[in-house]
Amino acid sequence: MTLVNHRFTLAARPVGLPRPTDFQYAEEPVRQPGDGEVLIRNRYISLDPAMRGWMNDRRSYVPPIKLGEVIRALALGEVVASNDPKLAPGDHVVGLFGVQEHATVAAKDATKVLPVAPLPVFLSTLGMPGLTAYFGLLDVGKPQPGETVVVSGAAGAVGAVVGQIAKIKGCRAVGIAGGADKCAYLRELGFDAAIDYKAGDLAAALREHCPDGIHVYFDNVGGATLDAALAQLAMRARVVICGAISQYNATGPVTGPANYLSLLVHRASMTGMVVMDYAARFPEGIMEMAGWMAAGKLKSKEHIVRGLAEFPVALNMLFTGENHGKLMLEV
Amino acid sequence: MTLVNHRFTLAARPVGLPRPTDFQYAEEPVRQPGDGEVLIRNRYISLDPAMRGWMNDRRSYVPPIKLGEVIRALALGEVVASNDPKLAPGDHVVGLFGVQEHATVAAKDATKVLPVAPLPVFLSTLGMPGLTAYFGLLDVGKPQPGETVVVSGAAGAVGAVVGQIAKIKGCRAVGIAGGADKCAYLRELGFDAAIDYKAGDLAAALREHCPDGIHVYFDNVGGATLDAALAQLAMRARVVICGAISQYNATGPVTGPANYLSLLVHRASMTGMVVMDYAARFPEGIMEMAGWMAAGKLKSKEHIVRGLAEFPVALNMLFTGENHGKLMLEV
Repeated sequence: MTLVNHRFTLAARPVGLPRPTDFQYAEEPVRQPGDGEVLIRNRYISLDPAMRGWMNDRRSYVPPIKLGEVIRALALGEVVASNDPKLAPGDHVVGLFGVQEHATVAAKDATKVLPVAPLPVFLSTLGMPGLTAYFGLLDVGKPQPGETVVVSGAAGAVGAVVGQIAKIKGCRAVGIAGGADKCAYLRELGFDAAIDYKAGDLAAALREHCPDGIHVYFDNVGGATLDAALAQLAMRARVVICGAISQYNATGPVTGPANYLSLLVHRASMTGMVVMDYAARFPEGIMEMAGWMAAGKLKSKEHIVRGLAEFPVALNMLFTGENHGKLMLEV
Repeated sequence: MTLVNHRFTLAARPVGLPRPTDFQYAEEPVRQPGDGEVLIRNRYISLDPAMRGWMNDRRSYVPPIKLGEVIRALALGEVVASNDPKLAPGDHVVGLFGVQEHATVAAKDATKVLPVAPLPVFLSTLGMPGLTAYFGLLDVGKPQPGETVVVSGAAGAVGAVVGQIAKIKGCRAVGIAGGADKCAYLRELGFDAAIDYKAGDLAAALREHCPDGIHVYFDNVGGATLDAALAQLAMRARVVICGAISQYNATGPVTGPANYLSLLVHRASMTGMVVMDYAARFPEGIMEMAGWMAAGKLKSKEHIVRGLAEFPVALNMLFTGENHGKLMLEV
């Protein structure tokens, strides 16, 4: 019996917002695992803003996806065949399994998840987005009790966790998101203030909600949002650069932060972070966050789109802001 | 007998490069010192890029100069009358004595200098520029032996000291300056490479001279120079934002660094520094640098323009790049 694998490959490098024709939906026979390999059936495929960057032919923290290659994506799957003693059929694993039904990978590239939460949570709060928030906020932002933490893309998978951890650490949490629904969700999560950037003057709203200035600004957005936050920094503020979703589909040059000299005026710092640098400490982050979830202090929300074929449409929801919660495909 | 004080006040807020009509050259009687005050005769008046920012009506790390007020400037002078036991006539002092012949100030605002170097050096390598280089490079940039340190405005009063301290600390020092003369001066000071940004492609020159990337970038310039350096960062690089002379006379918005996402790719940081934050540690910096000067490891160069009346012309030499060495007026 030959299993068939359906998958999306990169047909063309997108210019601006990806179009369906930038991807090819193809099938191929499943490759049986060799020595030290496992065959995985994907259950959930994570859709993340960083994937857009991987589609560009540009040096970044990981190599670009090659034309004809399967679209790189984190996924959670079930082991269906194993040639490695550490993994057995039925185990649930996460890894870069790609936008496809099946993946044949080295066992060392598949990380077993423990059954402490529903499966989708391991692509969300107990996965890369949650870990990005955890290490980015705590290790780079270093928030102190009583300080004001502002996060952009606050209703996103990373942002929502940033704000909730800020609250757990005794900070004032202010979220920036697009639309009344997302802002209502932030208030539900316990944010002290939620700013709808589509509703008016973001700079004025930040002045109103951060009267003592912004001590930690966690940026997922870039562009005008970053500039507005820079204008309102407190002395010795820490700006964490986690992403710049406003710029990922830009066809011209990236818009640099015109207010960057606020770093000088406020003796502030702006630091980039990539979650993979913390890989050795992931268990620490997962354990602490699982504890907070069990105690009801940290909530996780997933937005699950059903069907692998929905990939091109679902991906763009990240950039149009249509998703509510961590976006993923259910295969 | 009434002493007359000649001085420059701010007549109008400059738009772009300051014009002579933005200043008023006026005279007034010298005010005799009250209790706890001293009367100082200025000998050398420091001309610094930061003065341009103080002329704007804009929030910064110090309040703007008011219209009609004397132009704020660091100066070195001689005490001619003292109503404070800590200072006596004949003492040499530095402080914010302004662009004028005489200043009457609180004795606590005048810092006595020790006779370990010629007077102009206390406005240069053993003054604010040298201390800015010392604390900015060592405390914020944290260079490690073998790393590559790049400094812009390298032939300036701050930049020349940054490069020389980088060498003292066992780093590779690369300077960016405008013109062949300035580059020759940098090589004289012991820089490993000097890049003339006016001579061609700065980004290509940085790639050539920093094959392992830039570990510490000390920025005095901003604009396109900052962007070129960001494009060539090494992993975990530290960018020190000390100034942005390319932007001080900008009449439009500041040009933000379009390559700021290089901070993310390289897990790098960009941090603003203001030398006054290190005031309590100035003696430490002055003593160590005076030792390096005595040992011939650190050279100081001053560009002295004679005559207070030359102020409007001399100030603009900072922005046209005509000065060679720390620019100051001799009164």
